[in-house]
Amino acid sequence: SSSVGGNVIGVGVDQELITSVPSYNPTFVSRNFTDTEITYCRAQPSPASSFAARWAGKEAVFKSLGVQSSGAAAPLKDIEILNNTDGVPCVHLHGEAKQKAEERGVAKVLISLSHSESQMSVTGLSLSR
Amino acid sequence: SSSVGGNVIGVGVDQELITSVPSYNPTFVSRNFTDTEITYCRAQPSPASSFAARWAGKEAVFKSLGVQSSGAAAPLKDIEILNNTDGVPCVHLHGEAKQKAEERGVAKVLISLSHSESQMSVTGLSLSR
Amino acid sequence: SSSVGGNVIGVGVDQELITSVPSYNPTFVSRNFTDTEITYCRAQPSPASSFAARWAGKEAVFKSLGVQSSGAAAPLKDIEILNNTDGVPCVHLHGEAKQKAEERGVAKVLISLSHSESQMSVTGLSLSR
Repeated sequence: SSSVGGNVIGVGVDQELITSVPSYNPTFVSRNFTDTEITYCRAQPSPASSFAARWAGKEAVFKSLGVQSSGAAAPLKDIEILNNTDGVPCVHLHGEAKQKAEERGVAKVLISLSHSESQMSVTGLSLSR
Repeated sequence: SSSVGGNVIGVGVDQELITSVPSYNPTFVSRNFTDTEITYCRAQPSPASSFAARWAGKEAVFKSLGVQSSGAAAPLKDIEILNNTDGVPCVHLHGEAKQKAEERGVAKVLISLSHSESQMSVTGLSLSR
Repeated sequence: SSSVGGNVIGVGVDQELITSVPSYNPTFVSRNFTDTEITYCRAQPSPASSFAARWAGKEAVFKSLGVQSSGAAAPLKDIEILNNTDGVPCVHLHGEAKQKAEERGVAKVLISLSHSESQMSVTGLSLSR
């Protein structure tokens, strides 16, 4: 099946040490991850790595949207990263993140996650139609 | 001369420690690299770094194509990375990788390689026309 | 406000250890950074990190333009990276870099910067109209 692409509006990169993402903290987790993300990450061989990958992914997507960060109040739970049936991570925007994306003409966000033993590295791309 | 670009269909990132790519293993090398790649890498000041950069590049391109990994059976030899006359790394797809790319409407794959002392970091982009 | 995007012509990635960028060297700094960049970096909490981020950014942009490196003579001062009012880093090309970009049909260059404690990581994208 062929895929839908688009013009690039923004790019975002982020890298995070796995140990720097406090996925052992239930408040941090419930504040920043959706129920589906939490269920997925907890079922993986290394939940800490999976949470860190998604955390880096959310930051990269946020940067690719080109909006000013509101710091600790940034709605990172509104940026949901779920694997499709081919195992490819896909971005789903909700709430305020979705609204910001629409205001900027973003129709789709692509992402790729990579990890070494200690570090996650992610690139996100915001596309218009 | 002007260049041909395209809409982005997929992005792929990969990072690899140079020490984690077994380029000292002839079976690994002949299984995953083309003769032209092998000749090129062996002629570089640090063959291990050159093999590792290409290995990370193949993984990044594979991810950018958005196809399900077939694990150890993935046809990474079909993803060939050669420098053009300007020294810019270019992606050439063959066999199964080429077929998958065509099925998804990918007309061109861009790539950039970077390395620190110990690590290779790569981003690939799959473009449609 | 909606944004202007474009077709991707080139991608460039770069990673630099903060300690490997000699921002303590006035000759290096004045040779490679514009006055506006220097004023900005010196006003940041960690000037060394800010210089390193821009240095990596210049290298990534240079790679994304797909031109042959002229090594130490590369006009990296011609690649200026300044934050816009939203805090998003934006690329401004001057002189030889601007000319090379125009020859290749590059209308805009997007960039994203990321840093860990010790390392900067950047991706740049050259876009046509």
